[in-house]
Amino acid sequence: MTDVTPLPAPLPSGATIGILGGGQLGRMLSVAASRLGFKTCVFEPGGDCPASHVANAHVQAGYDDVEALKTFAQSVDVVTYEFENVPTSALDLIESIVPIRPNRKALAVSQDRLSEKAFLSGLGLTVAPFAAVDDAVDLAEAIAEIGTPAILKTRRFGYDGKGQARIMSPDDAPQALADMAGASAVLEGFVSFTHEVSVIAARGQAGDISCFDPGENVHINGILHTTTVPARLSPAQRTDAVLLAAKILNALDYVGVMGVELFVTPQGLVVNEVAPRVHNSGHWTQNGCVIDQFEQHIRAVVGWPLGDGTRHSNVEMLNLIGDDVDRMPEFAKNSAVAIHLYGKADAKPGRKMGHVNTVLGPAS
Amino acid sequence: MTDVTPLPAPLPSGATIGILGGGQLGRMLSVAASRLGFKTCVFEPGGDCPASHVANAHVQAGYDDVEALKTFAQSVDVVTYEFENVPTSALDLIESIVPIRPNRKALAVSQDRLSEKAFLSGLGLTVAPFAAVDDAVDLAEAIAEIGTPAILKTRRFGYDGKGQARIMSPDDAPQALADMAGASAVLEGFVSFTHEVSVIAARGQAGDISCFDPGENVHINGILHTTTVPARLSPAQRTDAVLLAAKILNALDYVGVMGVELFVTPQGLVVNEVAPRVHNSGHWTQNGCVIDQFEQHIRAVVGWPLGDGTRHSNVEMLNLIGDDVDRMPEFAKNSAVAIHLYGKADAKPGRKMGHVNTVLGPAS
Repeated sequence: MTDVTPLPAPLPSGATIGILGGGQLGRMLSVAASRLGFKTCVFEPGGDCPASHVANAHVQAGYDDVEALKTFAQSVDVVTYEFENVPTSALDLIESIVPIRPNRKALAVSQDRLSEKAFLSGLGLTVAPFAAVDDAVDLAEAIAEIGTPAILKTRRFGYDGKGQARIMSPDDAPQALADMAGASAVLEGFVSFTHEVSVIAARGQAGDISCFDPGENVHINGILHTTTVPARLSPAQRTDAVLLAAKILNALDYVGVMGVELFVTPQGLVVNEVAPRVHNSGHWTQNGCVIDQFEQHIRAVVGWPLGDGTRHSNVEMLNLIGDDVDRMPEFAKNSAVAIHLYGKADAKPGRKMGHVNTVLGPAS
Repeated sequence: MTDVTPLPAPLPSGATIGILGGGQLGRMLSVAASRLGFKTCVFEPGGDCPASHVANAHVQAGYDDVEALKTFAQSVDVVTYEFENVPTSALDLIESIVPIRPNRKALAVSQDRLSEKAFLSGLGLTVAPFAAVDDAVDLAEAIAEIGTPAILKTRRFGYDGKGQARIMSPDDAPQALADMAGASAVLEGFVSFTHEVSVIAARGQAGDISCFDPGENVHINGILHTTTVPARLSPAQRTDAVLLAAKILNALDYVGVMGVELFVTPQGLVVNEVAPRVHNSGHWTQNGCVIDQFEQHIRAVVGWPLGDGTRHSNVEMLNLIGDDVDRMPEFAKNSAVAIHLYGKADAKPGRKMGHVNTVLGPAS
């Protein structure tokens, strides 16, 4: 006989799911949880946050507020998160009281671009050439090794193109290093790719894996603009994308939904980055599938079997950034458009206000 | 030039929708409202009600609490309802402060089976033979006119088969009348029908109408058991069903979603009853259409254009009554099943705990 760790019992409907972060991802996770009869409690320092509008409870406190973190952790049956930069001390405290899913390993890997690249290449997956950069000497060596053009990125806390500087020639190195403001960084070589796709992959507590069809992403100014399904991929590439995502999930003993961004190159798929959470490039699933990425994540986190991620429709997801949201009357009139707004009061430039899923027709 | 009453401006995303009633319909309306960026405030006497879990605010007070009704009405931009038996005095008070949609005419008609039958037959639609019954003399005359078998129903406050008594022969009359407990009643003749369908129809503020595909209903013990789309209907019956629903909506200058139950007979469609709200037999739309009945209702109520009600899938909706909800592990494992639970704590017999939509395949 071998030792087998028994699976934790699935949470019964009616249990409470704690969500770290109260933005739009927390909001849509909360709605998905309600469909399955779960209650949600959101932990978020900001008031009137998108998730608080639909959650049962909102603990409004900072991530350094030990008492609030305890109260939160004691009031819920499991904790998940909508962003990967939750402070370690907060996670330690919460985990002493209630399980966190996806697990800490996934967070640790994805919180740091260097760990992430090392982990992915350790799995035998192709990533952009990379090197750690802490100072001008490191950067000079990295440029000598990787060449230009290249891109310098902070190891931590980067998102939507922030904390990045392009190095088109070695002359750009000093400015790029200055842009990092003393933060540890990674130099990444440019990958010559034809387009970017992402796989939204889920793994349940029993190790079952279900991947949504890959979507094709277009970014503008470093922010996701559209995701379209189906993506332009050969059958072999499609299989590669799914197997690769499964490999990552299994290696992390992951539970929940993960977003895996891939560059499509003539030499094959290159992993750009992973996000240990529901992902903007998976929003199309709300109108393309019976079970969307948010419900899939909740099912995994509570220990239920994963749902059916089969795609029934072709969809284009368009992010509404800043005053894009003023186009709402036009979208509302288009009967093929499903609207998803986040309840944010002010349409600041660069702010994700909502998205629309245009159903292009039956799945092809 | 003719006088044209200008349409009220559509409510902007971010406005607050008041919902009278905090059950599962209010819950699913609230979720749909959140998708469009609206906030919701639920008025419901009961605590920990299904809608309160997902609404922004819950005014917990009775329908005779004038101050609470005022506070509620003043905190919202429009009011809608999840059930038709809202007391008139509460509606009067609310309407003095904020618009109610659908309008009072629809409520007045549907709150009273006699008014409803008279209204429908006045439109030239076929209904079961009916007669008002206030006492034994009325009942004897009604039986003489309509014959048996027939069914005696209270004029008001009946739902899910409650407040009804079958009269198989004139001998059953005294017991049936006693069952009404002194309430005004209507005797309805039996309609010999092959099956029941319902049309979930929506009308926007501009008078635009959109109907979902009719669903076929099976009841058990007077409670809806399943709704299946597509329903067994000839193309002509399908057209009749939709035109008939549109006629009702237009006659009421209706704004919102209405459920219209129809008997299918060899002689044509007979209107059983109408409900001026989202309807249990429309729950399949959540997994059969891009825009479901809840979002359609919200769009109408806030003055947005209606969405696309086109069906993309064949679906069977199954109500989970009482301990049916214990079958959840089985449903969760079936990858074609979408689960919708209402967050009710106790699975009492006869209580609607949730429903599951089984996606049977692409629309046919």
